[in-house]
Amino acid sequence: MSQRLKLVIAYDGAVFAGWQSQTHRNTVQDKLEQAFQKIIGARIRVHGAGRTDAGVHALAQCAHVDLPERRLSAERWTGALNASLPATIRVLRCQFVSQNFHARFSAKGKVYHYRIWAAPILPPLEFSRAWHISPPLDVDLLEEAGERFVGTHDFAAFAANRGKKEEKTVRTIWSVQVRRNGPRVTIEVAGDGFLYKMVRLMIGAMTRAALGKMNPAEITSRLKSGRADGVRFVAPAEGLYLAKIWY
Amino acid sequence: MSQRLKLVIAYDGAVFAGWQSQTHRNTVQDKLEQAFQKIIGARIRVHGAGRTDAGVHALAQCAHVDLPERRLSAERWTGALNASLPATIRVLRCQFVSQNFHARFSAKGKVYHYRIWAAPILPPLEFSRAWHISPPLDVDLLEEAGERFVGTHDFAAFAANRGKKEEKTVRTIWSVQVRRNGPRVTIEVAGDGFLYKMVRLMIGAMTRAALGKMNPAEITSRLKSGRADGVRFVAPAEGLYLAKIWY
Repeated sequence: MSQRLKLVIAYDGAVFAGWQSQTHRNTVQDKLEQAFQKIIGARIRVHGAGRTDAGVHALAQCAHVDLPERRLSAERWTGALNASLPATIRVLRCQFVSQNFHARFSAKGKVYHYRIWAAPILPPLEFSRAWHISPPLDVDLLEEAGERFVGTHDFAAFAANRGKKEEKTVRTIWSVQVRRNGPRVTIEVAGDGFLYKMVRLMIGAMTRAALGKMNPAEITSRLKSGRADGVRFVAPAEGLYLAKIWY
Repeated sequence: MSQRLKLVIAYDGAVFAGWQSQTHRNTVQDKLEQAFQKIIGARIRVHGAGRTDAGVHALAQCAHVDLPERRLSAERWTGALNASLPATIRVLRCQFVSQNFHARFSAKGKVYHYRIWAAPILPPLEFSRAWHISPPLDVDLLEEAGERFVGTHDFAAFAANRGKKEEKTVRTIWSVQVRRNGPRVTIEVAGDGFLYKMVRLMIGAMTRAALGKMNPAEITSRLKSGRADGVRFVAPAEGLYLAKIWY
């Protein structure tokens, strides 16, 4: 009987074309599958908790694989995978789990971080790791806008259409927290699930409000109407970090 | 009469072949000289406070240039240069200075930071930005070893030989401070001047001591003898940050 292994993975989103396997094979999923192939000599499928777009970073993405046999301990798997992966992807830990565990379907919630660098000049070491916003940002308005997302809402107005009209769009946001440390603004968003580009559309709206370009009340009316009409802003991928997945 | 402009510059050392101009032109000095040429249409020499090797980062490198005429304000120069530079180099500020100012010869001291990541796994976002040390590091020993450098000494034993035998090797180290925050260890070294590879040789010796592979007292005897004999360890470039230059 096959053995299911859970992986916790971190990566630098700037150097990969996102999570999801593609023909050019420069994605995180491809790199992981190549590492498994190198170690066990057979093609194996890596099931991620969710896709991240190109540019989006992961502090703790999760995935699972079904191994043909239990040859190595979980700790040994961590070392073997890291020895086969580029330094821009690290397996933080591995754990054998039951067949009931599924990286995507067992997830109870996720935490994302979003980093904004609010200053006239973006330091070189923040390039590709933060959204650079030069005009003054009102952090109180950013918080007020963020609070409006907390609770259970229809997030249809904050999802990119992937042509799946039947998808349920009700989600619960547990918390939106804003921290400012000098020019570095970090927004932490936690919830039971996220639609495609939902965090980036939320951050986009919050930022519009914080720049005085939109009334924060607009967020509430969009959540109520559930309609995606009107101008929407997608915050850039480089500021987004998948920080934690709850099971 | 020409106008002297002082620049404070930050860069990501991972993407350039160091500071100093080279034929392939992928150095920070080359990029700055290209930016000036684009703006004023003439070749101009950028004089740096000191060279940094490939991989070494700068939070605040300094340089000066002599401009043929005063066409732009200092603030405008900052914007114009940044518009012509890659995002991995930023001019933090510009200032017109007297002809007596020289980026290299007027420097009264420098501050370097060195970052060690002391944990079994190096996070992807720390790759090329810290020295990854997996075995347990004794931070008390690191501090004790660092303290031994403080004061005025002959640092010949902590300099890479560049064939310049006549160079004076006495320098004063004002302070060596070690801070640990989880796996991140930051060492701040401040002094009136540094010989070639001196900080990296100091960190190399401190780390050997902190790993229990060298008696910290060895540092004192090497400073006293001024001899570079025996095995020496150069800490890797990627952990080093030029943090401040005092004038």
